[in-house]
Amino acid sequence: MTQKDTVTACLILIGNELLSGRTQDRNLSHLGKELNEAGVQLREARVIPDVRETIVSTVNECRAAFDYVFTTGGIGPTHDDITSECVAEAFGVGMYVDREIVDLLNAYMARRGRAEMNPARMRMATFPEGAELLRNEISAAPGYRIGNVFVMAGVPRIMHAMLEEAKKHLEGGRTVLARGLVVDLPEGAIAEPLALVQARFREVDIGSYPQMRDEGFRVSVVVRSADPGLLNQAVDELSRSLKEIGGHPEEEDLATAPSQSHPEEE
Amino acid sequence: MTQKDTVTACLILIGNELLSGRTQDRNLSHLGKELNEAGVQLREARVIPDVRETIVSTVNECRAAFDYVFTTGGIGPTHDDITSECVAEAFGVGMYVDREIVDLLNAYMARRGRAEMNPARMRMATFPEGAELLRNEISAAPGYRIGNVFVMAGVPRIMHAMLEEAKKHLEGGRTVLARGLVVDLPEGAIAEPLALVQARFREVDIGSYPQMRDEGFRVSVVVRSADPGLLNQAVDELSRSLKEIGGHPEEEDLATAPSQSHPEEE
Repeated sequence: MTQKDTVTACLILIGNELLSGRTQDRNLSHLGKELNEAGVQLREARVIPDVRETIVSTVNECRAAFDYVFTTGGIGPTHDDITSECVAEAFGVGMYVDREIVDLLNAYMARRGRAEMNPARMRMATFPEGAELLRNEISAAPGYRIGNVFVMAGVPRIMHAMLEEAKKHLEGGRTVLARGLVVDLPEGAIAEPLALVQARFREVDIGSYPQMRDEGFRVSVVVRSADPGLLNQAVDELSRSLKEIGGHPEEEDLATAPSQSHPEEE
Repeated sequence: MTQKDTVTACLILIGNELLSGRTQDRNLSHLGKELNEAGVQLREARVIPDVRETIVSTVNECRAAFDYVFTTGGIGPTHDDITSECVAEAFGVGMYVDREIVDLLNAYMARRGRAEMNPARMRMATFPEGAELLRNEISAAPGYRIGNVFVMAGVPRIMHAMLEEAKKHLEGGRTVLARGLVVDLPEGAIAEPLALVQARFREVDIGSYPQMRDEGFRVSVVVRSADPGLLNQAVDELSRSLKEIGGHPEEEDLATAPSQSHPEEE
């Protein structure tokens, strides 16, 4: 792959429990941040059930449309863990048992005083032909890469460890930088200056996220661009425009800004 | 629409901030639970950016594939709020200004001592032709229904109010019932009995969600079915099988079971 400016990715979250509302996903936001640091832009995510045809067709559609695809979930030992067989089907390849992983899993079981491997646990050592394993410190059962698809666990702690390994395989493009302003005006009042600055800076992406607070309305304005010069120019211009209409914009530290829930509206 | 057994839905979450990792979604799990209570099964969710072509094509793809489509996000006053114009384009209709909503928004502004309506705020009173508005107590700017698509705000509190209105329009099918067992065995040990019971009860969906706890491994087994008789039979049989292999399964109250994060692995 030659170096590209914009490298894209799609995340496929696999699991009935995400759609029934039983489980609150935490992997999407982690992956979005981590990938951007690696120069890869997460452009879409799909949450799909443990249904074979859906998994196969979604993997095939997404691997054709994006530079990289990541999946989470469905690689454990139980009957509802069908991701690997679906990925093999999507790629039209068979599956093989990795003896080293069988040994690792056996050693893991022995340490915990559990029974030996059984057919169910063997599933965690069975991979699509051509898979490159993503071994990690947290789980004896690895994730893997096949083509441009990275298959990872759904449990966040294990997914994080697999993603660290996956990142070694990525050829990223430019990282998108972000700066934030927080302003003491309602969204409806700042919309026009925002749109004007957005129109002048096409290479910059300006997002507006109202907050509802007891002390009154505030809006977080997030400015993103791969070009640091344009980013800073756009922020300066925004800041000036917001002051002209009576606002008091302040730099917002995006690393510590509230991000654990949807912002509240004005 | 004639009464159907299974009524399906797809959720389209619109917003760059969900993909960049700035904002942690909370709407998916809420919608999944609420829809099931209304007899509608959430079968897929897509998270997409504020990009016109992506929104238009995703809306058109999903409204053809599912009984209902719900969207969240992108209906505010700023330049990045483009959901309504995209939905109009997807349906091939024009847009109109709703005078009653203009009056409502004006009254809302007046109460808060803000400036009158401006072009940006008018966007919140502008809807695709044929839209049926979903007025609500929380926000003067309503969501709406057009065809089988429900357009809602991204802010959870407002989305919840709009969904309450949306539910009045739904013709649901059967509601899926769920029971949970929690068992003190690792996933690899219970996989075989789970698979056997699953194979005997095709109308029942059995999910296995390992937890990692300081006090040792536990697995939550969630059994779901629209048929209460089959559901109870499957749970009884599972319980018996798990006892036979030395487990101590206990009923888990799904309403209070941990659901705020991915379960941890064995």
